[in-house]
Amino acid sequence: MPEFFNVLPPDAARDLLYQHITPIVESETVSTEGATGRVTAVAISSPQALPSFRRSTMDGYAVRAADTFGASEGLPTMLAVVAEVEMGKPAAVDLDAYEAVVVHTGGMIPETADAVIQIEHTQKIGAGSDQQPPFEIEAFKAVAVGQNVLQVGEDVELGEVVLPAGHYVRPQDIGGLLALGITTIDVVRQPRVGIVATGDELVHPSLTPNYGQIRDINSFTVAAQTRLAGGVPTMAGIVSDVFEKMQGVASNTLAGNDMLVLSAGSSVSVRDMTVQVIDSLGKPGVLLHGVATRPGKPTIIGAVEGKPVIGLPGNPVSAMIQFSMFAVPTIYYLQGLPSLPRRGIVWARTSANIASETGREDYVPARLEETPKGLFARPVFGKSNLIYTLVNADGLIKVPLNKGGLAAGEWVEVQLF
Amino acid sequence: MPEFFNVLPPDAARDLLYQHITPIVESETVSTEGATGRVTAVAISSPQALPSFRRSTMDGYAVRAADTFGASEGLPTMLAVVAEVEMGKPAAVDLDAYEAVVVHTGGMIPETADAVIQIEHTQKIGAGSDQQPPFEIEAFKAVAVGQNVLQVGEDVELGEVVLPAGHYVRPQDIGGLLALGITTIDVVRQPRVGIVATGDELVHPSLTPNYGQIRDINSFTVAAQTRLAGGVPTMAGIVSDVFEKMQGVASNTLAGNDMLVLSAGSSVSVRDMTVQVIDSLGKPGVLLHGVATRPGKPTIIGAVEGKPVIGLPGNPVSAMIQFSMFAVPTIYYLQGLPSLPRRGIVWARTSANIASETGREDYVPARLEETPKGLFARPVFGKSNLIYTLVNADGLIKVPLNKGGLAAGEWVEVQLF
Repeated sequence: MPEFFNVLPPDAARDLLYQHITPIVESETVSTEGATGRVTAVAISSPQALPSFRRSTMDGYAVRAADTFGASEGLPTMLAVVAEVEMGKPAAVDLDAYEAVVVHTGGMIPETADAVIQIEHTQKIGAGSDQQPPFEIEAFKAVAVGQNVLQVGEDVELGEVVLPAGHYVRPQDIGGLLALGITTIDVVRQPRVGIVATGDELVHPSLTPNYGQIRDINSFTVAAQTRLAGGVPTMAGIVSDVFEKMQGVASNTLAGNDMLVLSAGSSVSVRDMTVQVIDSLGKPGVLLHGVATRPGKPTIIGAVEGKPVIGLPGNPVSAMIQFSMFAVPTIYYLQGLPSLPRRGIVWARTSANIASETGREDYVPARLEETPKGLFARPVFGKSNLIYTLVNADGLIKVPLNKGGLAAGEWVEVQLF
Repeated sequence: MPEFFNVLPPDAARDLLYQHITPIVESETVSTEGATGRVTAVAISSPQALPSFRRSTMDGYAVRAADTFGASEGLPTMLAVVAEVEMGKPAAVDLDAYEAVVVHTGGMIPETADAVIQIEHTQKIGAGSDQQPPFEIEAFKAVAVGQNVLQVGEDVELGEVVLPAGHYVRPQDIGGLLALGITTIDVVRQPRVGIVATGDELVHPSLTPNYGQIRDINSFTVAAQTRLAGGVPTMAGIVSDVFEKMQGVASNTLAGNDMLVLSAGSSVSVRDMTVQVIDSLGKPGVLLHGVATRPGKPTIIGAVEGKPVIGLPGNPVSAMIQFSMFAVPTIYYLQGLPSLPRRGIVWARTSANIASETGREDYVPARLEETPKGLFARPVFGKSNLIYTLVNADGLIKVPLNKGGLAAGEWVEVQLF
């Protein structure tokens, strides 16, 4: 029973996989309002300039800047306020020399004005503060042409590409699109991820296991991770460790999905069977028998006719960490994201020594603790069969590939869950 | 028209608000499988020990550890393999001295065994590798009592609190609960957030604005932010800048929701009216007229009979940043989270000088750029009226309260969107 591992570091493993899979090309039209977390299928150009008219950035008076030149506290310039531009209304007024109009923040600037003087730099002459125009003001400061004015197209020019294809949509993107009247957008179809649990010992979580049986949990943690990454999980259920059965369910599940995840047992014989099943599904089959990480070395990475197939180790800690390291990026890759959404990380000092080996990336579950001496990451040690090592952790300490271990007190990168 | 700001730093502003609001006490029962992002309403205890039987962590042989004492490469111990424990089956076999049974990773250990010896540390004697028991093996290594065995309750003890109340549910928590057969849980009811847009200049994004009008976008960005924080947004629509109308809609919206957001214009008169409206809704009303941040100083923070009320500035950049700084934490607080989910941050060097003032926390939109010299944060400068400064950014550079500015090349904290 020889153990053969064709092992690569994580980055190289991902690159190898990406060479053999094809991003999804189908798109669908969704409401912009609800597009958070989706990925644009095509570049989106602006149908208009934004703003589409000149707007004031201050409460004050729209003026002709030249009229204010030389104005100062000691020698104010007198201006005749002839009208008010109401919010939401066009500025349908022409300014003659030394005339001004009341404008509010966000309001339109008359055609013949070219600057706004802030109300704080003016004073009404002989008028109550609530008097309507006409009245006169003294301006105590000069304003330059364009000052306190948003120009047409200053935010976006007509025809400008506002979002490229492959852009992950966030709340501000929704705002940016709606500002242009773009109320629907084309996004990449969500990847369908088929999840097959294999193992004679597994029962559905709603059942009470007999001695020797355990509840299937990996299918459900990876389904939750799939949803967070924008994929749609399909649970194909539990299959026993019989080649023909596993092969049949895997084949059907792959056919109906864009990606296949086999949540397999951890014994060598089951792992070997998973390798054979993946190889039987089509070309090229298994690409890699393991990744240079701990936990999770026995992760199987393959591709079948452009679709990714991932065989996860059976123990829950390895399964979840490996899924987040390979399957989650792959789900984004299938959606056409040119680079991954950046992971949230924090830097903290490890509160215990961590052993590792050079040439392997280790991920150690850790709990973050604010202390008077700063932020510490306390490793949650425990066999990787213990799901509660992850429940009790806030993130993973990364021990880099080239480090033989970390000493207590050393600064470490913690990848947040 | 005096500008009166009762301004606090962000942390103090949040503390003040929290003193006047009440977390939601209602809970609902949801399927554990779909509980990602919800918050537990009560502590959850384990109805069983996990694992509930002793399991092997290796492929190998369950043995009585004492039988292997002294075993070595040079002087192996001979053991009689009398049976195999199949996956998913009870280990219904008793071991006599110098007997062993085949076990697989995750399989059950017989009552009379107390350790597992890895298959790699044994060799079959005179038997093919696929021969079924009985056969004999040589063991080349001693194992200690308990070695390679998961003990009953090693993951979780019977009755142990596995999740406290106020816990934010993540994929691993779902796995942890399902492992115990807990298929439904009680979570805090999602906060309902009523959103009112006010401004005579606003039209719905699906309409074409006339000169002087703009599309309402802030309602939609904050609705998207609300959903990401676990809240349920209700859009109350656009209200004109008339006190009675604003008051009526605000009052109705507050009554039907757990939190009220007024997305107001930015002019001083509209801001003043927003203050009056909030004060008219009930006690204590407005708590704070501004926060020591840029952008977003003119954010109004209030509370009415235990419910938070936030008046956002009109310009989209300030509105979104202020919402993420005050409203998002408040939505979590309403769900009873004892501390906020930790924000994802990265450290990078700023590629330009950033001006600021001591006593104010500044947030500058920035794009992250990987360079041969490391990660740089390039500030996206632009008036805070320009939504595309946020669209073109990956996160916000934080200029701490006590810093007068940052020099190009300085390391900065970037809060990721």
